[in-house]
Amino acid sequence: MSEQLSFLQIAERCNCVGNINALLESNEYYKFIVNEQLVGLISAKDIPALKLALNRHPVLVIDDTSQQVQFHDSYNNSCSSRTAGLKDLLAFMREQKSWPSLAKWRDELYPVYGDAKEPNGISLYMERAASYNFGIRTFAVHVNGIVKNAEGVHMWVAKRSMRKETYPGMLDHIAAGGIGNGMGVLESMLKECDEEAGIPLEIAQQAKCTGTIQYFMQSDLGLQPETEFVYDLELPPDFVPFPKDGEVESFSLWTLEEVVLHLKNNEFKPNCAIFIIDFLIRHGFITPENESDFLRIIDNFHRPLPFPAV
Amino acid sequence: MSEQLSFLQIAERCNCVGNINALLESNEYYKFIVNEQLVGLISAKDIPALKLALNRHPVLVIDDTSQQVQFHDSYNNSCSSRTAGLKDLLAFMREQKSWPSLAKWRDELYPVYGDAKEPNGISLYMERAASYNFGIRTFAVHVNGIVKNAEGVHMWVAKRSMRKETYPGMLDHIAAGGIGNGMGVLESMLKECDEEAGIPLEIAQQAKCTGTIQYFMQSDLGLQPETEFVYDLELPPDFVPFPKDGEVESFSLWTLEEVVLHLKNNEFKPNCAIFIIDFLIRHGFITPENESDFLRIIDNFHRPLPFPAV
Repeated sequence: MSEQLSFLQIAERCNCVGNINALLESNEYYKFIVNEQLVGLISAKDIPALKLALNRHPVLVIDDTSQQVQFHDSYNNSCSSRTAGLKDLLAFMREQKSWPSLAKWRDELYPVYGDAKEPNGISLYMERAASYNFGIRTFAVHVNGIVKNAEGVHMWVAKRSMRKETYPGMLDHIAAGGIGNGMGVLESMLKECDEEAGIPLEIAQQAKCTGTIQYFMQSDLGLQPETEFVYDLELPPDFVPFPKDGEVESFSLWTLEEVVLHLKNNEFKPNCAIFIIDFLIRHGFITPENESDFLRIIDNFHRPLPFPAV
Repeated sequence: MSEQLSFLQIAERCNCVGNINALLESNEYYKFIVNEQLVGLISAKDIPALKLALNRHPVLVIDDTSQQVQFHDSYNNSCSSRTAGLKDLLAFMREQKSWPSLAKWRDELYPVYGDAKEPNGISLYMERAASYNFGIRTFAVHVNGIVKNAEGVHMWVAKRSMRKETYPGMLDHIAAGGIGNGMGVLESMLKECDEEAGIPLEIAQQAKCTGTIQYFMQSDLGLQPETEFVYDLELPPDFVPFPKDGEVESFSLWTLEEVVLHLKNNEFKPNCAIFIIDFLIRHGFITPENESDFLRIIDNFHRPLPFPAV
């Protein structure tokens, strides 16, 4: 049996960028600036391939002295011009295999905020597969699917398909996903409930947004400063989730004790793990009395992020 | 009728120190350093009176060049020696009326963390009345006293006695208070429930700690970087709170709509107001859909604090 992790170790594995300012000041990253606002960080390692592609599609301008990447003036006047320019550039880079990440093209557009003149303050939309390279702040929904019965609280846990592009085979929430393509928060939650777990609309609508989790992750994929909206959904005892979109291999209904065992065994997708710890705190299963790291754990749930949001 | 505040304005009035780093770098504050750790900030305005008192009780050493205040070596070897030295100094300063705040002497000792060699990591204990002057990180409990019935969720709201030393006559939680005198978190919550609202132990024990709120406040009193443990307590519909310690003038049971009205009317004690907004979010009354400042509000609930905790 592998080593059991503490709740604090699990939280720190997700929110693993200890010092955001050090990252901002590091010359290992170029600042991605749109409309005079810092909206992301691009690894210096990704810059040479980006430069090559810009020779053909001069959508962005790179300044090596200040280590800044900005839109070329001719693409910088609106959300739609930035979005269209970046789309052409990234499509070309995908073709050229400029960045390996682009092989996992999603056809899903993530918003980048920071332009008050545009609807909802959105500066541009960016193909999701490139989001880690640009280190933009991303947004998502996570649903804790709960069943309460005489024996206590149970949680539905999904096993991710081995075919998933990220974290194949790891444990996951009943439903979760990025907020893209201009969708709203509630709308995204309802969509994921339907697609990932076959939860009917009339049940999914009972879900309550209990707040957010915000962390700054750094992984092989790149940077991921993320804001996630947390939902608790109490499901009827006779409801059984089923994957409609093939993203889930199987579902299990576990007691919280079983969930904790798999959690500490490091079987959950890192960000799901942090949500489950948040759930266990909010519902009084982890307390200041039974967990000496109580405050340090919570410190990992709400990182102030240096990039704009809605 | 006075101007109605937005939830964001209310949150920012409590968590009103916008830039903690600016405070740390400002020459308006002296750094209070114990055991080589920064544990607080002392206003430069409070330094002259402190210096005068130190002539008689040389417990602390002030370095004007580095703007640092530390314990004198002869008091610096343990929690008990620091505590005893500071007690003598502050008692003398109270007598001498060195700092106006000391007139509100509480006879309650607040822990200052940061010494791993001591039990619970406590470097020293400090009289509560001086905590604002030293800008130490303080800890407290807050209880949301809830009644659920057919008409929905109600909250018990206290009106603070006009004789309270701070925020007289303002609205407050059913029970709340600082964690002092070496008490634990749960223990403090049970004590406040008893003393402030006459809640019997068997009911108070049902309260669930749902997490923490952490803010950095600056007011006429001084600096207040505070970590507060949040409890939700569902009370039986027939329970009526009564003040045992005279700190509360009266209690009212309000619908959440009524609570929001008084909240926006700025009638609540500032930190209570932030807890109620947290409650309204956690229970799905404030949502990403009905509140455009949703993320910005939450940003005020979990400030990373630059001083150590347990």
